[in-house]
Amino acid sequence: MLNNAREEIASPSIPHLLLEENVLPNVSIDCVIFGYHNKELKVLCSKIEGMDLWALPSGTIGKEEDLNDAVYRVLEEQTGIRDLFLKQFSVSGDKDRSLVNTGFPVAGPELSTPAAAAVQWIFTTRVISISYYALTEFSKVTPRPGMFFSETSWTDIHHLPRLLLNNNETVSQALKTLRLQLQNEPIGMNLLPEKFTISELQVLYETILGKALDPRNFIKKLASLGVLKKLNEKRSIGGHRSPFLYKFNKRTYTKALKEEASLVF
Amino acid sequence: MLNNAREEIASPSIPHLLLEENVLPNVSIDCVIFGYHNKELKVLCSKIEGMDLWALPSGTIGKEEDLNDAVYRVLEEQTGIRDLFLKQFSVSGDKDRSLVNTGFPVAGPELSTPAAAAVQWIFTTRVISISYYALTEFSKVTPRPGMFFSETSWTDIHHLPRLLLNNNETVSQALKTLRLQLQNEPIGMNLLPEKFTISELQVLYETILGKALDPRNFIKKLASLGVLKKLNEKRSIGGHRSPFLYKFNKRTYTKALKEEASLVF
Repeated sequence: MLNNAREEIASPSIPHLLLEENVLPNVSIDCVIFGYHNKELKVLCSKIEGMDLWALPSGTIGKEEDLNDAVYRVLEEQTGIRDLFLKQFSVSGDKDRSLVNTGFPVAGPELSTPAAAAVQWIFTTRVISISYYALTEFSKVTPRPGMFFSETSWTDIHHLPRLLLNNNETVSQALKTLRLQLQNEPIGMNLLPEKFTISELQVLYETILGKALDPRNFIKKLASLGVLKKLNEKRSIGGHRSPFLYKFNKRTYTKALKEEASLVF
Repeated sequence: MLNNAREEIASPSIPHLLLEENVLPNVSIDCVIFGYHNKELKVLCSKIEGMDLWALPSGTIGKEEDLNDAVYRVLEEQTGIRDLFLKQFSVSGDKDRSLVNTGFPVAGPELSTPAAAAVQWIFTTRVISISYYALTEFSKVTPRPGMFFSETSWTDIHHLPRLLLNNNETVSQALKTLRLQLQNEPIGMNLLPEKFTISELQVLYETILGKALDPRNFIKKLASLGVLKKLNEKRSIGGHRSPFLYKFNKRTYTKALKEEASLVF
């Protein structure tokens, strides 16, 4: 079924991976790609061709392909984006996620399209899903839909549609992980433009955490970490206010992240 | 080859999982089980029967088995331990980990044992390894060797032997994760006895982090979290010293762990 569906679609990059016999059975990769811009945290979702169903970027692993290579390939094929910060955060693999239990129609006119046939294959195959999250400043990238998808777009994390399989739960877990890892992954550096104000950095943290932070404590903590470099540049934001711009000091930022367990104790 | 090896060994728990056709191909589970006792952090390793090679507890996933059930089953089969705190922390899956590249003999007298045949199968099969770490107070458990192993014992984390495949690297990654997660997982609660002194808790943190902590900062931080409950009991440790005993306040401890991102900012 998957081979039939896939043969109708030309793959520009690695054609042999369209054939079932060339990929590892029972394993797949899911990507939660977080994009941040102007107080909004979004996730990249794709609409399955001819169906009213959305999904996270996902794909299989070639039998002759390293896991990390597969993850970057899937990301590029499905979104047109390369070289993002990627981090594995969960694995799911319950035996029972059949069509019947998820309310997806087992047979019907929609199943005649290649995309629907592929979806049916996904629903009826036992798969261990390895999930990664990625971070980007979303105005920087122009996503394009991959194979089987008619549309790929940034969706506000608080207004996601019903997604394929357990994809909604995967996004929740990714957000939980992102919140926990705010202190020990280069999250600020990946989600913000190179230069930013302290207030913009605080808004990023507040958006991810979903709550307000005390500005004085925030500045105090940042100062004690020594991860920021104050620039001799200001941004005019109207009125008489023109706050200084900062950028991350890559060396101390990376060092602080590595030693994060010592930041608290 | 695996079937031949496995048929010679009786499995007490789930016999059908000894047959290759009943497990998911290309996926395996590795467990790094940390044990802590009296200033020592150890890892559970098993010696492969008839060979001078050690390995982490590992196993496969049944086609009709949920991933989480498989992890707990593997843990129990290989070590005799149930119900530990378990956390998935990494996935590895490079295509190339053949016998030749790891220095393992492709053929030889040792390969005549079922265990050696199983090891050869492991080396020659493309596997995506999903790694978990577990925590226990190691004097509490009596590990027993599982299938294919002659001995299972606690090994000091700083003096591990050369382990199977990339198992040594997996332990390093697990330790790194443990250090990062000291603040957001119930690590203290899982590694210490129910009642402990502040000094014992600090020694646990110092052992995991591999460095000395300032006692005043440590106490101050703990007090601000409110996660400890002071008991009306003391421990006599000789001389005139008899420090108070504490236990974790489960409710505030769990709450603090969940909100850990707010502990710093």
